[in-house]
Amino acid sequence: MTSFTLTPEVLRHPDSYKWTLYPQEVLPLWVADMDFAPAPSIVAALKDRLEHGLGYHLLRGDPDLTRLLGARLEQQGVPPLPEGGMRFLPGVVPGLYAAVLGLTAPGDDVLSFTPIYPPFLSAIRDHGRTARTVPLLQGELGWDIDWAALEQAVTPATRLLMLCHPHNPTGRVWTREELAGLAAFALRHRLWVVSDELHADLSFQGPHTPFVTISPELEQRTLTVTGPCKAYNTAGLGIGAMYSHNLALLDRVTQASAGVMGHPSAMSVTMWRAALQDDGAWLAAVLDQLRQNRDRVTAWAATVPLLRYSPPEATYLAWLDLTRHPRAADMQAFLLSEAKVALNDGPPFGDGYQGFVRLNFATSPEILEEALTRIGRALAQE
Amino acid sequence: MTSFTLTPEVLRHPDSYKWTLYPQEVLPLWVADMDFAPAPSIVAALKDRLEHGLGYHLLRGDPDLTRLLGARLEQQGVPPLPEGGMRFLPGVVPGLYAAVLGLTAPGDDVLSFTPIYPPFLSAIRDHGRTARTVPLLQGELGWDIDWAALEQAVTPATRLLMLCHPHNPTGRVWTREELAGLAAFALRHRLWVVSDELHADLSFQGPHTPFVTISPELEQRTLTVTGPCKAYNTAGLGIGAMYSHNLALLDRVTQASAGVMGHPSAMSVTMWRAALQDDGAWLAAVLDQLRQNRDRVTAWAATVPLLRYSPPEATYLAWLDLTRHPRAADMQAFLLSEAKVALNDGPPFGDGYQGFVRLNFATSPEILEEALTRIGRALAQE
Repeated sequence: MTSFTLTPEVLRHPDSYKWTLYPQEVLPLWVADMDFAPAPSIVAALKDRLEHGLGYHLLRGDPDLTRLLGARLEQQGVPPLPEGGMRFLPGVVPGLYAAVLGLTAPGDDVLSFTPIYPPFLSAIRDHGRTARTVPLLQGELGWDIDWAALEQAVTPATRLLMLCHPHNPTGRVWTREELAGLAAFALRHRLWVVSDELHADLSFQGPHTPFVTISPELEQRTLTVTGPCKAYNTAGLGIGAMYSHNLALLDRVTQASAGVMGHPSAMSVTMWRAALQDDGAWLAAVLDQLRQNRDRVTAWAATVPLLRYSPPEATYLAWLDLTRHPRAADMQAFLLSEAKVALNDGPPFGDGYQGFVRLNFATSPEILEEALTRIGRALAQE
Repeated sequence: MTSFTLTPEVLRHPDSYKWTLYPQEVLPLWVADMDFAPAPSIVAALKDRLEHGLGYHLLRGDPDLTRLLGARLEQQGVPPLPEGGMRFLPGVVPGLYAAVLGLTAPGDDVLSFTPIYPPFLSAIRDHGRTARTVPLLQGELGWDIDWAALEQAVTPATRLLMLCHPHNPTGRVWTREELAGLAAFALRHRLWVVSDELHADLSFQGPHTPFVTISPELEQRTLTVTGPCKAYNTAGLGIGAMYSHNLALLDRVTQASAGVMGHPSAMSVTMWRAALQDDGAWLAAVLDQLRQNRDRVTAWAATVPLLRYSPPEATYLAWLDLTRHPRAADMQAFLLSEAKVALNDGPPFGDGYQGFVRLNFATSPEILEEALTRIGRALAQE
């Protein structure tokens, strides 16, 4: 699964954002990439690509990549896309921003569940839209949709629902029933839906159910964004795609971001093609390791007083509720200084998440164990 | 200078936009990349980078790259930039678009000389600004600024002058006197200036004179964009930078494009660092070959009836005026079908350039000779 040793000494490469932001004694379990080396087939394809020059590649969409990704989506049940129904992005975040720009006007309201990957909120707010956030309900079994609150959040200015499926940071994989409920909601209120399905290939629940497969009516209201960077651990090579069966939606988004966005690089295109052609063994091994790590976090969490946590059904992210701990008011800083473990702090994920932290468990069992030990010790001492 | 053979068979890699857009019998001398292989030091750095994972890199600006590029700019006479005075882009074109968005409002007028690299015009027009174009004067010695027309083009709504230095497609390197004239003009009319200096390292005239070095007053009015892709032939790895001594300008541009603009990839950052640390032998050999090719185009042009042409002082682009030829009305299509040579057509470079074509001479002497022979024969037959 990996071609380099997962030790802090090796991982602390000067180009790694994750491993260089904090001092050497800190274990970085924050930004969402994995400590594992990329799939050998991807590295081999990239090295081969370097033998053929670095001039302009097919900027308007690589036909092989379009075909490979289209086939993958059809395997997941997505009805065949019309010509021009898939467009490439330099990353998923630019796609989220461009979707807000293209599908809403300044002053419009946009719905999002919280806690949420922070760029959802900034994509809504940075260009003058209003985020109507709907907190997920923290039940015994996980994070559930508050359907009543969702209805109440709709205003006359609400135009768009932004969905994260699987959900970052809670790791929820929305069930077919939940997706059907959201579909009915979107149709009832005549909303566009942007569905971020970036973590689709990192589910522990079996095959992914794209939101757009829920109903044909929904196809005309939905724009989905996806990309390889989470499952294949290639965040350094930005690329993504947006697709829709409604070309008018894509055209609006394309036009709103015309020229500003940038193209995915030639190397990113090569990488995604290789990922889609990989035999799957690497990803299976990664998922196996992630599942073991998740289960270890779950077992550990049960031993930590005051901690509430629901095991993620997808992703390598554990969303830890330490709001009952005496140091809840500065939990991320506390764990950084006392445990020497860097996690993501709760508040950027939405109002009301002070005392929450997001832990990235995509590392070696040894590093994870050391981090959990340090965190447990720090929490107990206070 | 090159590690692969410059034959059509080798160059026709499926990822090459230049070599795959047209049928096999066509020699592609259009889109602006070079047929030469990248510098060996760059390829080596990229291969090494692949050994260290592909997770998130330092998205907010790589400090080594900032330092290396800053040092290069200071060598060119640019006064030291303030902290935050250099910001990275996924390419120069996104920078041009974002600059228009950030420095002007819809309805404002923006000045540009024509003929001009087409994204200048689309950057102005795609988001609702008006292009006030000022045709360059075609003198016996080259393409000159029409100072009277420039003055006349200014309206009360004019806010920005977009400069291309060296100029694409004419290959003019604006002299210090011309730059001083433009500086005085910009100050007199209280204009912002965006100076695209992407071709700076491909000058046959010796060291580049950045526009901002003309006067200290200008520093507060100018935003410069640059990048490695032309000189180092890395258009497939999009990256660029914008810099200014006026942080407010950069902040406006950053804010206007917030989130929508992608980040340069980890590989692009590695590439530019390697380019800035290269010993210069590769670039010197490239420039030598380009100069020879340019001189060959110049000698050939003198033998072609009805052709007007001024040798470029920079770039690998020859801007050919065939307006007096009987087939001027469809010159690009005519040469494509009759000479089997693909050039860039004139009209996208501005109104009035029907009958012009842009020829990219960054190829082997053999391919260039064959293309010139074919073009000359086709022009003579008609």
